[in-house]
Amino acid sequence: MTFPVVGMIGGGQLARMAHDAAIPLGVRFRLLADTSQDSASLVVGDVVLGDYRDLDTLRRFAEGCDVITFDHEHVPTEHLRTLQAEGFAVRPGPDALVYAQDKGLMRAKLDGLGVPCPRHRLVSDPADVTAFANEGEAAARSASDKGGGGRRVGGYPVVLKTTRGGYDGKGVWVVADETEAAEPFRAGVPVLAEEKVDFVRELAADVVRSPHGQAVAYPVVESVQVGGICHEVIAPAPNLSADLAAEAQALALRIAGELDITGHLAVELFETRDGRVLVNELAMRPHNSGHWSIDGAVTSQFENHVRAVLDLPLGDPRPRQPWTVMVNVLGGDYPDMYSAYLHCMARDPGLRIHMYGKDVKPGRKVGHVTVFGDDLDDVRERARHAAAYLRGDITE
Amino acid sequence: MTFPVVGMIGGGQLARMAHDAAIPLGVRFRLLADTSQDSASLVVGDVVLGDYRDLDTLRRFAEGCDVITFDHEHVPTEHLRTLQAEGFAVRPGPDALVYAQDKGLMRAKLDGLGVPCPRHRLVSDPADVTAFANEGEAAARSASDKGGGGRRVGGYPVVLKTTRGGYDGKGVWVVADETEAAEPFRAGVPVLAEEKVDFVRELAADVVRSPHGQAVAYPVVESVQVGGICHEVIAPAPNLSADLAAEAQALALRIAGELDITGHLAVELFETRDGRVLVNELAMRPHNSGHWSIDGAVTSQFENHVRAVLDLPLGDPRPRQPWTVMVNVLGGDYPDMYSAYLHCMARDPGLRIHMYGKDVKPGRKVGHVTVFGDDLDDVRERARHAAAYLRGDITE
Repeated sequence: MTFPVVGMIGGGQLARMAHDAAIPLGVRFRLLADTSQDSASLVVGDVVLGDYRDLDTLRRFAEGCDVITFDHEHVPTEHLRTLQAEGFAVRPGPDALVYAQDKGLMRAKLDGLGVPCPRHRLVSDPADVTAFANEGEAAARSASDKGGGGRRVGGYPVVLKTTRGGYDGKGVWVVADETEAAEPFRAGVPVLAEEKVDFVRELAADVVRSPHGQAVAYPVVESVQVGGICHEVIAPAPNLSADLAAEAQALALRIAGELDITGHLAVELFETRDGRVLVNELAMRPHNSGHWSIDGAVTSQFENHVRAVLDLPLGDPRPRQPWTVMVNVLGGDYPDMYSAYLHCMARDPGLRIHMYGKDVKPGRKVGHVTVFGDDLDDVRERARHAAAYLRGDITE
Repeated sequence: MTFPVVGMIGGGQLARMAHDAAIPLGVRFRLLADTSQDSASLVVGDVVLGDYRDLDTLRRFAEGCDVITFDHEHVPTEHLRTLQAEGFAVRPGPDALVYAQDKGLMRAKLDGLGVPCPRHRLVSDPADVTAFANEGEAAARSASDKGGGGRRVGGYPVVLKTTRGGYDGKGVWVVADETEAAEPFRAGVPVLAEEKVDFVRELAADVVRSPHGQAVAYPVVESVQVGGICHEVIAPAPNLSADLAAEAQALALRIAGELDITGHLAVELFETRDGRVLVNELAMRPHNSGHWSIDGAVTSQFENHVRAVLDLPLGDPRPRQPWTVMVNVLGGDYPDMYSAYLHCMARDPGLRIHMYGKDVKPGRKVGHVTVFGDDLDDVRERARHAAAYLRGDITE
């Protein structure tokens, strides 16, 4: 058979779950990973070990693949441009991916498209951060004068982000004053300042788009973050108005189209007190906000990502039941989760457990659990209980 | 983490799908396969190539595993007894597995338990087959005299089976007379004669049992066979009385317990015109009758098999929607299914496709498709259409 080979760069849990989704599709899955003990390396049959920052390694890897795609956003953009120029299929392509790699470029691009974002600009030093904060104060007073009040848009605290390399709360600071604002500049990389949005909650609109332009939208989910790390996802987002849900999905589809993104796009959003959505982050790969879809949707984000990068027709993204709740399992104080794992399986035969094969370290994402059903309170309680038990936060 | 290693012997699609189910569980999956191009070898990370008929190969493989289990029933029973005597965990164990390996022993055991089976006995030559057929005629007349008529229990045609080595219709003959009855004896292996049951349809009662005695029963399914090969499975079996369904499940659970089976047990059944079930075959491994459960049940047969052989608590076997239909994709005349595969995905975004990575040969099982939903006619039509299209039987 002439089934194609999809190559994924990066050996984390996203690649592990993508491999799991690729198996039934009958496509070949090839992995470029740092070590044989990476989460995905432990389970994938066709693994190449090497450094994703090295062009020759990337080239050799790509030669065995019909398309290359990503578990993370850290592959140097210039290498991807070279590969693309040499005729390799890179999806999402570097011209799209750069907006997930560089938050400064992302904000500028979204501004150009008129996409609502938190107030932001690149800043040069701590004094400039204070200037940014003051600009917000002025804007807030002006908006209040015009009757648009109630939304806090300026002043300290301010969110500072390195434009490249951050994830899971790394590379992000919430600073209370000019003294604290000094820290992010120490690495010598460009820093983006953003207003600290006074949001009601965080949402995510996940879509998948293929090279020939087909796209599907998953239901908008509520994402609960703790310390900058995704903790819990509820699909669909409870009590979200149909209008705002449709607006968020349309926004994500529009961004995917305008940026010519292929594969899965997660648009992380803030829902504001005045009933709008602002784009927080973009991720152009399978994303934690979509893990619920493995057990909860007809077609998972991983399967649809694999289909999309191969330009296969996309699968139905609809949920299979009224509620699905996914809770991340974070490493706690006990390095061995196995006895807790047994307990959780025995307590709840409907619990869907996903372990990533990673060593437990405090705060590290080592798995997730999913529960689905008709009653949100029941579903959420069961998922939270299992995650807390696995972490060791509770023992009964 | 101290997550265990499950070793599966045999590189077919059952191992491939078991690997797929083992990944989220976080357990390690190790494979013993004949070649690097076997269905499961293509996707499993930890593959040992070797001959499952060689004791030293088996022993070396088992040394890296916490438990060994099976993709097929062809591992020599005596080797499994040796491994068990040396302290390796073999599940199902040889004392149980022998009843799936040898149909003569299976029938004798089920007779001893009073389990309803087709009339049967070992036969020594063609004349003995005619004697067996005549015994049935006599029994039928006697039953008719006693008012138990309506069931055909004797005379030609007769079903002949080699007691060992058969699968998917191989090693099974339906013979019309003594001349035809000569064929099965040519191989020089023991032959079992069985009445040709005048059944309404075939059912399967699949259960999973763990070493500590926990067991779960999947809903009884209807299995449509064509030429001795499973063609279509409907879950649950339509219009099956609750009493007969419960009886079939209880029978399967009783067999699993009495034979001390661990892992998945498929009990293939005939539903007779007079409303009873007779045991046709036993399979002590994941089975084609349970493939629907990957997409259709809360916990698939593959995940529950892996859980069971590791003595983990079992998962919920209940269906997630009213109807699930699985249709096997058999190889047809066109060796390349890829364009048909694209068509099927585009036509039906809700179709669940499972390809096994095998070369297409006429009649070979190369994949399966599953559709689930509320309307049986719709679900069945979609699944049948996709399988027929993939095979090349239809082109629109």
